[in-house]
Amino acid sequence: MKRISEYALLAEEELRKIDYKGGDVAGLYEPISYAMSAGGKRLRPVLTLMSAEAFCGDPMVALKAASGIEMFHNFTLLHDDVMDKSEVRRGRPTVHVKWDENTAILSGDTMLTLATQLISEVPDAVLRPVLDVFNRMAIDVYEGQQLDMSFEREENIEMTAYLKMIGLKTGALLGAASQIGALIGGATKEQSEEMYRFGMMLGLAFQIEDDYLDTFGDATTFGKPIGGDIKNGKKTFLVVSAMNRSDKDAEAYKIASKLPSGDTKVKTITAIFEKMNMRAECRKAVSHYSASALDALKKAGLDEEKREAFRSVVEKLTGRKK
Amino acid sequence: MKRISEYALLAEEELRKIDYKGGDVAGLYEPISYAMSAGGKRLRPVLTLMSAEAFCGDPMVALKAASGIEMFHNFTLLHDDVMDKSEVRRGRPTVHVKWDENTAILSGDTMLTLATQLISEVPDAVLRPVLDVFNRMAIDVYEGQQLDMSFEREENIEMTAYLKMIGLKTGALLGAASQIGALIGGATKEQSEEMYRFGMMLGLAFQIEDDYLDTFGDATTFGKPIGGDIKNGKKTFLVVSAMNRSDKDAEAYKIASKLPSGDTKVKTITAIFEKMNMRAECRKAVSHYSASALDALKKAGLDEEKREAFRSVVEKLTGRKK
Repeated sequence: MKRISEYALLAEEELRKIDYKGGDVAGLYEPISYAMSAGGKRLRPVLTLMSAEAFCGDPMVALKAASGIEMFHNFTLLHDDVMDKSEVRRGRPTVHVKWDENTAILSGDTMLTLATQLISEVPDAVLRPVLDVFNRMAIDVYEGQQLDMSFEREENIEMTAYLKMIGLKTGALLGAASQIGALIGGATKEQSEEMYRFGMMLGLAFQIEDDYLDTFGDATTFGKPIGGDIKNGKKTFLVVSAMNRSDKDAEAYKIASKLPSGDTKVKTITAIFEKMNMRAECRKAVSHYSASALDALKKAGLDEEKREAFRSVVEKLTGRKK
Repeated sequence: MKRISEYALLAEEELRKIDYKGGDVAGLYEPISYAMSAGGKRLRPVLTLMSAEAFCGDPMVALKAASGIEMFHNFTLLHDDVMDKSEVRRGRPTVHVKWDENTAILSGDTMLTLATQLISEVPDAVLRPVLDVFNRMAIDVYEGQQLDMSFEREENIEMTAYLKMIGLKTGALLGAASQIGALIGGATKEQSEEMYRFGMMLGLAFQIEDDYLDTFGDATTFGKPIGGDIKNGKKTFLVVSAMNRSDKDAEAYKIASKLPSGDTKVKTITAIFEKMNMRAECRKAVSHYSASALDALKKAGLDEEKREAFRSVVEKLTGRKK
């Protein structure tokens, strides 16, 4: 197995090879090229490449599918940014800001089909299982986004509903990225399903860590201003956990959550979260899902050296190593 | 071969069988069910079923793929309606009006994946060719929509550019609908490509007929108010044809095209089109592409009885029989 940065480089080089059409349809492809060149961790294709290598010793067999996974991820970001009216992504204007909403919709649609085409560039023997995993995952992601948007209008969210939402919106794609790599690498159905579980559990740990860092993180390493979720009234792991208590702190939280958006609200709620021992609660949940992810690798039959490679991904994403 | 109405009924019944999820994701699927129940000719799945029957004697083998084709068509309508800010479709409010834009975007995305899933429900032996035709067609349709939107901002459109645009936006889907049915029915690659050409040529004839009826048609049979394209300054076959002349009528057209939108503009431009003999020019183009469509059926090796069934579709769509 290679280092994470090497898989990321393989994915990056493959993505750069995609030849977007110009001429009279340049207006359709320029936003795609723009979105795909924004960089980022390339985590999802890394998982696909690693999973393929884990089962057949060669990550290259999954290069096209890996780039399809990354294309799909960026398609969801593009449409989500329109829906969430986000104006900045990775330090640059979002597509609907730099161009317009229509462009973001149509170029996004194109990315979904391009992703399906890339995903389909696998040997005939695994075309159907790979496609089935990919399409089911896509449906999961849309359902996750739907739940996320409907949570905004709801007063109280149960923890199970929150975990379902992040499982669909974040976990499903990490799961499918891992499972598809495994299938291409020749894993059995059962092994590939354990790799899906690995990605799903990693996704839950990753999202809860992200929720944690948005309140308790360091702005320089986190890459975004701290407290954004509190200002926006986002239903994070911390909020859902706080809302489902019935002690004095929970009362204090409910009152503070009605404060107008701003730094005072961030300070007040952060202090309440501290008092609730929310740091420890987050760390506990992240550890739990990280352990489940590593357990799935064992059930998938990966040896110690391979598990070690995946463990470094888990640690990187859950803040144990940065 | 059966009557067109029988194929349409088969498609309609199959579409009604789709079981959309409810519960906490009902908000994602209700707009899809709404869009899919709006009725219409079901022309595209009819072509898929007919093409399958033409090659293997049984339309039922292509039922799932046919419903996938119709799902894809309705996905494009849903997103196009957002982009064009259309408020009414088949006499009912569009999805982004009845719900909101975010719902239209996300439910549309879901329809594209549902369509891909339905299209994939074909025997393994034809999965790859069917999927390749479907994905290439989807890209064509997006490029067609891109060209259509960019034409709005352009002063002068060449006839070849116009034909390319309607070929991508309308022809490609009728072509793929026919080709996919043929592939499922066991057609050779070459036969299936002739069936694509049939659908493509039918699409060109159909779109030019539609452009014609928007100016010269009868509001009761056309189903929409006459003159809408002129009011909206749409680049139709008539407009492109008029713009590419260099006689006195062309000068008159250019002046009239600057008139404010309204009934006077419709009357003035319609009179100029009459003087240009645009009725005959449209009829000539429609006849030309209809003949090409029928020619493709011969090259695909279909016998007289089968060609007759497809001919009735061509005649129905190009106004020879209504």
